[in-house]
Amino acid sequence: MDFLLEILVILIVAKIFGELLEQGGFPAMIGEIGAGILLGPSVLNLISPSATLDLFADIGIVALLFISGIEMNLRSFLESRDAAIVTASAGVAVPFIFGFLFGQVFGMTTIESLFIAITLSITSIGVSVRTLIDLKRLNTPVGSTIISAAVLDDIIGILLLAFLASIAATGSAATEKLLLTVLASIVFLVAIATAGRRAIIWVFDHARRTETHEMVYSAAIIIALLSAYLAHTAGLHYSIGAFIAGLILSNQIREDHMLFDSLMDFGFGFFVTIFFASVGLLFDFSLETFTSPLVLPILILAFAGKIVGGFLGSINFLDRAEALMVGIGLSPRGEITLVVAKVALAGGIIATGLYSAIMIMVIATIILSPLLMKRVFSFFEARKERVTEPPPR
Amino acid sequence: MDFLLEILVILIVAKIFGELLEQGGFPAMIGEIGAGILLGPSVLNLISPSATLDLFADIGIVALLFISGIEMNLRSFLESRDAAIVTASAGVAVPFIFGFLFGQVFGMTTIESLFIAITLSITSIGVSVRTLIDLKRLNTPVGSTIISAAVLDDIIGILLLAFLASIAATGSAATEKLLLTVLASIVFLVAIATAGRRAIIWVFDHARRTETHEMVYSAAIIIALLSAYLAHTAGLHYSIGAFIAGLILSNQIREDHMLFDSLMDFGFGFFVTIFFASVGLLFDFSLETFTSPLVLPILILAFAGKIVGGFLGSINFLDRAEALMVGIGLSPRGEITLVVAKVALAGGIIATGLYSAIMIMVIATIILSPLLMKRVFSFFEARKERVTEPPPR
Repeated sequence: MDFLLEILVILIVAKIFGELLEQGGFPAMIGEIGAGILLGPSVLNLISPSATLDLFADIGIVALLFISGIEMNLRSFLESRDAAIVTASAGVAVPFIFGFLFGQVFGMTTIESLFIAITLSITSIGVSVRTLIDLKRLNTPVGSTIISAAVLDDIIGILLLAFLASIAATGSAATEKLLLTVLASIVFLVAIATAGRRAIIWVFDHARRTETHEMVYSAAIIIALLSAYLAHTAGLHYSIGAFIAGLILSNQIREDHMLFDSLMDFGFGFFVTIFFASVGLLFDFSLETFTSPLVLPILILAFAGKIVGGFLGSINFLDRAEALMVGIGLSPRGEITLVVAKVALAGGIIATGLYSAIMIMVIATIILSPLLMKRVFSFFEARKERVTEPPPR
Repeated sequence: MDFLLEILVILIVAKIFGELLEQGGFPAMIGEIGAGILLGPSVLNLISPSATLDLFADIGIVALLFISGIEMNLRSFLESRDAAIVTASAGVAVPFIFGFLFGQVFGMTTIESLFIAITLSITSIGVSVRTLIDLKRLNTPVGSTIISAAVLDDIIGILLLAFLASIAATGSAATEKLLLTVLASIVFLVAIATAGRRAIIWVFDHARRTETHEMVYSAAIIIALLSAYLAHTAGLHYSIGAFIAGLILSNQIREDHMLFDSLMDFGFGFFVTIFFASVGLLFDFSLETFTSPLVLPILILAFAGKIVGGFLGSINFLDRAEALMVGIGLSPRGEITLVVAKVALAGGIIATGLYSAIMIMVIATIILSPLLMKRVFSFFEARKERVTEPPPR
């Protein structure tokens, strides 16, 4: 199929499915991912992942995280810093330990056990962010703790993956590569927090004073993409760079309503939809997939690990209901897990049964986490209202 | 180079060059094309045309023509219909005759002569539209005559190309294909003017009433891309379908300022810039290119043909100054000419000398036409002001 036609079909089906889900009271994102599953190899087999679609999806995740950085702003992010560090650490450690022990108990190899451990540790920041935006909860203590923790979680996860790769390869070259990744990530984070921050603000302010009418818009997109690209080059995920760029430009962009709306349209009206549909394209399951005996245990471990970890990590900073929501909010796994599992399957590191279980786990956490979050949010809010109501005489 | 990096480099260099040109009083478009030439095979050889970049460029030309359809609206287009038909016919016939005779006089084959004739006949609608938008002259009698004529010109040009292909191939299969192209184009144009129009308005109105916040924006983009894709499938150029979709939705979109601004940003802040830069990438010249003895005659023929044709075609509908501007406005040749010339060179239909001359002609008309138009516009406006001034006592 012609690329332009692929983009068109994806947009049309994803938007219709998203709208149907939204009318039913569910997040549009689930419909968009569903559209990808329908069009992808498992069902209709009309569209396959490709480098071109990946580029659109990458711009989509960059737009999504850039926008959430803008909505959150640097101050809320820094305020939730301590909570985020503890939450991210516990939110990675608990599912990691659960996963590793599970593998060992079931007699898997060390590499397979480590693989399960890491798979269970990486939150899909895209799904968490989109859910919080859809539920209008991004700028709450729970929202900023989830996002900040998910960002750190993403950084830890990528280092863990580099670690796994170095173990799988063994030898001093692999260890050197691991150290290099850690070093490059640190350099990127320090650079963008210091000189990078000043450079971004300088470029953006200058873009305002140009003759070209759309320059501020172009500048915002260029800054987001460049920052994402540099993060990626340093070994991190695109989303980290885009998110930090959004935090840095938050105040300037929020002052300019037209610009902010236009960027929202660029993201949610086009590229972000393609991103979620392309996550759906990554699934390729048949009836056999569901019969793997590992499906249920992995799914339970996935939720239990993140909910326990997120709860324990944030309980010192939030109340119990909020800490529970943080745990649920960190539960979705996504495209990174899927891609890693595909590579591991192709490389013979894991067997088909485990691959299937991970795929089902990813889709189940993506669908169930937003629904659970919505429920829990409204449940605790209703209770809060009851509690603060004046007692009947 | 990584695709994301390619898009980034193109955006950054094209936006800077565009801004520099604009500060110097020239159209930004020239800077954007210049950025493509600099990054492309002729100079730095950093970026080559690819299917992925073509997709971005195609979305760019769709956005550009969709926006110009919105800005012009159906009424102005239909008002200039008679002028457009005569102007387009003369604007194609005169350069066609000039080109064919030139080939015959210089002892070229019939195919080569026809090739020159057709190359000189196809206006670059993208360059004309962008120049009129940059000069804020799209919605004037001259502007609507140029665009309407350029649209028809594009349709005629594509039929001529199909005709050339059928001659080059010979045989009944080729003739059948030509007839099929003509038929498909007519079917598309009739369908979009009748049922298509109603369907487009229906979809757009329904998009307004959905739950999804960005649905109107997505619907506008989907309609533009789909209409462009169908035009392309029918054998026409993407731009025709996008332009007609813009005409149809003109009133609805212009009423919604936020939506219109957001679509302008989507186009001029991102995709349109990539389109013009990718036109620049198509050039591959060396010092030898400039030494072809055909360069100067082809260039003179290119301007003379369109200026004489455009002038003669529109003189019954406009005054002399305006008719002259129409002729100049139809002069730019662009990406279609370049692509056709590349294919013809590779297929052995034309020699390197002729290919070089056409390439120089394209770039010269792209750079000179906007500059000439700007000059002529201000010259005649100054004169008009002098004429309408009260006589000194």
